[in-house]
Amino acid sequence: MADPIDFYMDFISPFAYLASHRIEEVGRRYGRDVVWRPVLLGPLIQANRAPGVPDQPNKLAYAQRDVPRSARLYGVRIVYPRPQPPDTVTAARAYYWLYDRDPALAKAFAQAVWQGHYGANGPTGTPEQVLVAGEAVGVARADLEAALADPAVKDRLRREVDAAIARGVFGTPFVFVDDEPFWGADRIDQVDRWLERGGW
Amino acid sequence: MADPIDFYMDFISPFAYLASHRIEEVGRRYGRDVVWRPVLLGPLIQANRAPGVPDQPNKLAYAQRDVPRSARLYGVRIVYPRPQPPDTVTAARAYYWLYDRDPALAKAFAQAVWQGHYGANGPTGTPEQVLVAGEAVGVARADLEAALADPAVKDRLRREVDAAIARGVFGTPFVFVDDEPFWGADRIDQVDRWLERGGW
Repeated sequence: MADPIDFYMDFISPFAYLASHRIEEVGRRYGRDVVWRPVLLGPLIQANRAPGVPDQPNKLAYAQRDVPRSARLYGVRIVYPRPQPPDTVTAARAYYWLYDRDPALAKAFAQAVWQGHYGANGPTGTPEQVLVAGEAVGVARADLEAALADPAVKDRLRREVDAAIARGVFGTPFVFVDDEPFWGADRIDQVDRWLERGGW
Repeated sequence: MADPIDFYMDFISPFAYLASHRIEEVGRRYGRDVVWRPVLLGPLIQANRAPGVPDQPNKLAYAQRDVPRSARLYGVRIVYPRPQPPDTVTAARAYYWLYDRDPALAKAFAQAVWQGHYGANGPTGTPEQVLVAGEAVGVARADLEAALADPAVKDRLRREVDAAIARGVFGTPFVFVDDEPFWGADRIDQVDRWLERGGW
């Protein structure tokens, strides 16, 4: 028999409880014993907040492994980690200005922003990148520059964010199917099944 | 065409980027348009930390919907939310004391603890519940009581938690397959595929 799978759980975690049923089945399928290792969430979280270390170092280290691994699984090209997080305000404002004129164009623009950021090793969310992404989908630089200086365009994004909060959104990606909420890239499979079955 | 799917994303989120590819495919499959709605993570997180409200109210409200929904999908019975989080220290200490004597018995004990907590509407992680779970798998109450008073049993758990932190564990469930880390109940499918393919 191959080496066992280590399954760390805290009795406090409902998701660990849900996972405990599935990991046993997976272990059996591939002839692996599953060793359960109870831990305590309190000290784990505390250790990730120790003074003098980056915020949540273990979680960040994991993300740097998990994000590219998930991307390979889904066949998505991604450059990660990025040297710095982008400023996304300008891109989001530009998006809604375009959306109110042409929703399909706005989506193409958003894809161009992401291509420049995660898909290639381009600049990071600068106004210049936003203008370039606009040009890539046929939006004149001068028009977009003028729109981004318009207070109404700034208000438009603010209202969207407020409406999202009022609807219960607390992170992204967040999906609503007929007001049924799904949070996280790892819930897209559930969105798929929800649509297939009409809920459960 | 049925109502569109709302897809909230922040350009900053690599997981939103990954999900953007998959949600479009899902939308096409079920004849639903997907409306992309850029938001800003900063204000979303801030709104969940407002003074005078419970910590992360939107996130908690979502968990109360997501946990039972996931349980129904996986066919796992769960009572959730619980009136109060359990104290899991005693159960974790008892687990390792049993594990060092009989790993299979320790796992049966852990399952009994979870059955009493999430599977039924039983008491919540008290020492009494731990003793009852022990009895349910044939462990004499007096023996377990004596073990739980032993400083060596307390040290055993402390060493496990320290070792988990040193290994990079920051939450649960957390799975290692040959030192490849997977965090979250929503990564069990990836564990499955990792074992099937021998990695990717």
